[in-house]
Amino acid sequence: MSNKIGEKFQITSFGSSHGTAVGAVIDGCPANLELSSEDIQKELDKRKPGTSSVTTPRKEADEVQILSGIFEGKTDGTPITGVVFNKNQHSKDYSMFKDTPRPSHGDFGWMSKYGNYDYNGGGRGSGRVTIGHVIGGAVAKKLLKTHNIEIVSHVVQIGDVKARKMSFDEIKENIERNPVRCADLKAAEEMEELILAKKVDGDSVGGIVETIAVNVPAGLGEPVFERLDGDLARILMNIGAVKGVEIGLGFEVADKSGSEINDEYLIENDKVKTKTNNSGGIIGGMTNGMPIVSRIAVKPTPSISKCQSSVDISKMENKKIEIKGRHDPCICPRVTVVSESSTAIVLADHMIRSGFIHPSNLES
Amino acid sequence: MSNKIGEKFQITSFGSSHGTAVGAVIDGCPANLELSSEDIQKELDKRKPGTSSVTTPRKEADEVQILSGIFEGKTDGTPITGVVFNKNQHSKDYSMFKDTPRPSHGDFGWMSKYGNYDYNGGGRGSGRVTIGHVIGGAVAKKLLKTHNIEIVSHVVQIGDVKARKMSFDEIKENIERNPVRCADLKAAEEMEELILAKKVDGDSVGGIVETIAVNVPAGLGEPVFERLDGDLARILMNIGAVKGVEIGLGFEVADKSGSEINDEYLIENDKVKTKTNNSGGIIGGMTNGMPIVSRIAVKPTPSISKCQSSVDISKMENKKIEIKGRHDPCICPRVTVVSESSTAIVLADHMIRSGFIHPSNLES
Amino acid sequence: MSNKIGEKFQITSFGSSHGTAVGAVIDGCPANLELSSEDIQKELDKRKPGTSSVTTPRKEADEVQILSGIFEGKTDGTPITGVVFNKNQHSKDYSMFKDTPRPSHGDFGWMSKYGNYDYNGGGRGSGRVTIGHVIGGAVAKKLLKTHNIEIVSHVVQIGDVKARKMSFDEIKENIERNPVRCADLKAAEEMEELILAKKVDGDSVGGIVETIAVNVPAGLGEPVFERLDGDLARILMNIGAVKGVEIGLGFEVADKSGSEINDEYLIENDKVKTKTNNSGGIIGGMTNGMPIVSRIAVKPTPSISKCQSSVDISKMENKKIEIKGRHDPCICPRVTVVSESSTAIVLADHMIRSGFIHPSNLES
Amino acid sequence: MSNKIGEKFQITSFGSSHGTAVGAVIDGCPANLELSSEDIQKELDKRKPGTSSVTTPRKEADEVQILSGIFEGKTDGTPITGVVFNKNQHSKDYSMFKDTPRPSHGDFGWMSKYGNYDYNGGGRGSGRVTIGHVIGGAVAKKLLKTHNIEIVSHVVQIGDVKARKMSFDEIKENIERNPVRCADLKAAEEMEELILAKKVDGDSVGGIVETIAVNVPAGLGEPVFERLDGDLARILMNIGAVKGVEIGLGFEVADKSGSEINDEYLIENDKVKTKTNNSGGIIGGMTNGMPIVSRIAVKPTPSISKCQSSVDISKMENKKIEIKGRHDPCICPRVTVVSESSTAIVLADHMIRSGFIHPSNLES
Repeated sequence: MSNKIGEKFQITSFGSSHGTAVGAVIDGCPANLELSSEDIQKELDKRKPGTSSVTTPRKEADEVQILSGIFEGKTDGTPITGVVFNKNQHSKDYSMFKDTPRPSHGDFGWMSKYGNYDYNGGGRGSGRVTIGHVIGGAVAKKLLKTHNIEIVSHVVQIGDVKARKMSFDEIKENIERNPVRCADLKAAEEMEELILAKKVDGDSVGGIVETIAVNVPAGLGEPVFERLDGDLARILMNIGAVKGVEIGLGFEVADKSGSEINDEYLIENDKVKTKTNNSGGIIGGMTNGMPIVSRIAVKPTPSISKCQSSVDISKMENKKIEIKGRHDPCICPRVTVVSESSTAIVLADHMIRSGFIHPSNLES
Repeated sequence: MSNKIGEKFQITSFGSSHGTAVGAVIDGCPANLELSSEDIQKELDKRKPGTSSVTTPRKEADEVQILSGIFEGKTDGTPITGVVFNKNQHSKDYSMFKDTPRPSHGDFGWMSKYGNYDYNGGGRGSGRVTIGHVIGGAVAKKLLKTHNIEIVSHVVQIGDVKARKMSFDEIKENIERNPVRCADLKAAEEMEELILAKKVDGDSVGGIVETIAVNVPAGLGEPVFERLDGDLARILMNIGAVKGVEIGLGFEVADKSGSEINDEYLIENDKVKTKTNNSGGIIGGMTNGMPIVSRIAVKPTPSISKCQSSVDISKMENKKIEIKGRHDPCICPRVTVVSESSTAIVLADHMIRSGFIHPSNLES
Repeated sequence: MSNKIGEKFQITSFGSSHGTAVGAVIDGCPANLELSSEDIQKELDKRKPGTSSVTTPRKEADEVQILSGIFEGKTDGTPITGVVFNKNQHSKDYSMFKDTPRPSHGDFGWMSKYGNYDYNGGGRGSGRVTIGHVIGGAVAKKLLKTHNIEIVSHVVQIGDVKARKMSFDEIKENIERNPVRCADLKAAEEMEELILAKKVDGDSVGGIVETIAVNVPAGLGEPVFERLDGDLARILMNIGAVKGVEIGLGFEVADKSGSEINDEYLIENDKVKTKTNNSGGIIGGMTNGMPIVSRIAVKPTPSISKCQSSVDISKMENKKIEIKGRHDPCICPRVTVVSESSTAIVLADHMIRSGFIHPSNLES
Repeated sequence: MSNKIGEKFQITSFGSSHGTAVGAVIDGCPANLELSSEDIQKELDKRKPGTSSVTTPRKEADEVQILSGIFEGKTDGTPITGVVFNKNQHSKDYSMFKDTPRPSHGDFGWMSKYGNYDYNGGGRGSGRVTIGHVIGGAVAKKLLKTHNIEIVSHVVQIGDVKARKMSFDEIKENIERNPVRCADLKAAEEMEELILAKKVDGDSVGGIVETIAVNVPAGLGEPVFERLDGDLARILMNIGAVKGVEIGLGFEVADKSGSEINDEYLIENDKVKTKTNNSGGIIGGMTNGMPIVSRIAVKPTPSISKCQSSVDISKMENKKIEIKGRHDPCICPRVTVVSESSTAIVLADHMIRSGFIHPSNLES
């Protein structure tokens, strides 16, 4: 198994839902970045369950401890290890899932590929494993901030409820004002209602999350196989439940003409800009200095309490399954911090790779 | 710049549109695969321009030469080098593009990042560079065929014309029967008309290409950061002009419920299958043995002959640009062989990485 | 900084001498290997200081905790995280080393490259960091044992005292019978005396450590750039204090003729063997089935209590330095477990890469 | 098989002794380096056989062609492909080696690992494959020269004849004045005599080659697993025939005391230097600004015309073998350009990785 992502700014993630701990080692962060456990905790709190009407009522404290990589309040260039010890993890009996994969969950893959599957709480296939992504993303965000780069993810669709377009500043402000993390406050209310209705029904619903990164310099990414759009698509598609990734106009380009959507250039304040941003900040695999805009399609949580068909793979026979428990009826609000983190990891990595951030020492 | 993709089955691509040659080195193909230059030529011929009404009338012979890696008609485990020497490449004066980036082309990135840009015919940013992808893909396909795996890409949408669903066998057969490479022959005709209308108009149009891979065993891909869906998304997004990637239902999941789209399991002929394939053959980052289905959004060719706004980056002033020349009004038909090749490269790589294909010798 | 080694069996090491913890994440160990913390503790105990007359009298408990990767007593394919929390680490004031690099220590590099150097106890440049190597090596050894591969390192020279040749079984047995870990018991006594004399003198002494691996199948390693001898040389040279690496006859080949040292082939018990093993088990970068033999040159511990010349890099002026403290007068005995571990990591990695060990599941 | 080395400055080598061509792709060289095929040819000419009394009388023209990566006389950031087409390669019948491995050659590994071995002229196991190393090294050297870094390799021992110590400038000058590439001209004569005597005798002899790199800045290399000494040891050990690698004093450290060989610091001309350079320019895995000094042990050419024992691996029976042909009785003189090239590749890679050379554009 490979649990690492990034080339120069590299995350190695470890741990499982009901094991001793989950965490990540961040290797390649240059020295002299101010960093504390609060910087990481703040991000982890965004993904913490049990904090609103629309997420699972499970309570998890999720307190991070830094085991290495900080000296006198700053990174020292050595690997940063962040760990969250699991607590109360044996609250429930999961043995009915031992040989019976839950539909549209990763269980079947784990069972057949590795043959020794920790089925408790989904093991390392659990969403809880994104704690590692968020630890890595928190460090990446702090590093990007030294270059004024900011990233925000927000919910733009849940079921058939769509948010209208908002400015970057409105998005940053409004997502903190509702549990759905949607910037269009009216749509947010409808989304919340829809999620609660699904919850009552023992069902779940999907949605779309958009991520915007601003102040990224032109020239990140490489034009053939290590394109920035390719690397973003990979890390975003690697988030559990994601089934599609778009950059800029995305699938809308299919029925457009070149003359409608080409991003024409102009000089503005002595800088090259584009009149429109249909490309979403990336052309030819490289950034052009405009905001980077991506969207991901998030499937409805596969854990639903309705009765479903499955199989017992040890007896090789059909079987019915009901998944009781406290699941998120819609994962989109909690995915936002993961897509923010993932985007930050890719950008931090490319900022170092492209020579914008010094590889060993921020003060060089 | 990094021009390599894959971990065990690794492609290093080189060359530019108007340089001496384009090609690729394929490293990591096990020994004892029967391989000839015809295997590669056959695939290259699919992307060759000048062969139909809907592509550019430019003629390029694109004959491949194998420089290494074959002994007595079979691979010998050493790197396979395939080269296409460029011919008649100085047919035209491109100097007006030296400092003036074409809207929605990669030029601006190349100019600002590398500072010594071969602007002739788009240099290494040209679609011609996908010859390297196709050389790699041809070897990958041949290797996958030893395990009965087949891959096909077809056009499912051009502009607002959409094809209806077809079976795998119909797709394989029908795409050879029309220049658009669309399996729905009626839609294919409308697509052809639409493309020709755009061509007359000096404009271009986008579309969607779907790729299906069958007979892929369960257990390819790794569940956290080297997921098969992530690796597919990356290589597909790395194709120039692609702005979105979907697996299975893709963006349709957003307004669905879990109960509607979960893929329930059943035992069929002593094998675990799913009743539906909304996941597109990949759940939790790993294959489940069902067909792998992806779709990419392809933007309209940015090269259009209509007048557009651009800038002269050496004088830092606004400027108008008209791109004359023989461009594809719709790139989708020629993209099909590139998405097939890209998919084949990722699958071949993971077949080796997951232990399904021996890393050094097919006869081991 | 990069703190990772290996391609398929991959170690990411973290932590520093006086930080919160040191440890390693092992990624890529297949599932279904029986593994407990005792397997790791046993190896860590070999490098633990304070256990004999010839090592530092510092006491360190060095108890390992496994945070992830084990399910029901076996690996489950997920990353294995082993951590040793540091204790009593603030016993001493190291501030005199803040700006004054110790001669022939890494300090100067750390200071000038990273600019925020944890100088306490040598920070991440400390020998204590090899705890990560040993954790990784312990897992690698257990994995190799499933294929009957055994590795042993022993001291063959300290100062001018050289051990005579011994058989593999004698080496395994005898090194446990003396604190120097030398298989020639008479030489071992002289070595011990020499080390103690250097200790009294406030000085230190170098030596040579040999590592032998038996039962490695033919065909490990790749013949051009990922040769097994190259990968061994790298990991062994990466051990602090090592200034030379030899395979087989090593530097002795310089004054030999081909006719004297070529390893001629013969058939023995239906297997291809060589009459001699001057190549040390590796020819053309690949194993030939004979024992793998390497030797490393270990420099005298640079920490000596004699007065030495150094500089104050903040004031840029010359300065005298005396390094008080409890240092190993000869590091060779404790290096043995690190060279064993390093060799095991490289072999485990190549056993997976070459298809001898399944990448995900030992029971596949 | 993996045929690539380097992380940011990356060489992918291809081709075999009697195939169509040998060559290399250099990926990651920044744009705006002046480069011509003469720069490469000059280096290739140093390894060309048939040019002196002490090398094989085989004639090979070895003319390099650049297929990509240069625009208007300068690199443009895209991959540089250099190819040497093989000529007259079928001069001889090698079929007696098809199933009979030559002692201490890589043949046996190739046969057993890949199962389809191009035995003609040693196939890809031939020394001819180092043409790829030299192409890569030529580009690396040109790149390093922009930072004033120079590298020279010279022969310091053949058989029992040892050269005395010489200055860097004497070495550069004197090695061009004798076919052995030894800087001590008196020793060079004795070496030449010794080699010719071995040649007459149908035998071969080993030696030692030293490489010195000057003007390398302090701070190259990373202190744990990507140490510069480790990376140098790997690439040097990867050269066929090399059985040992030393940095600085190397194996001499074994019988020294810390007080004898520690490199004490002093300030000289406002720079930190060491009084001695026993460390060979690398301490703690990182350069300290002093010259980098390495030595490699080169075994006698295994191809000798004396009768030797081998086996027929298809019949599994013992067999005698005589290797007729025109072989180098001592490979050391021709190895010098390969060790120079290998050292240059590693240094160029680390210069980019450590932020001393911009990754995409020398003029940034």
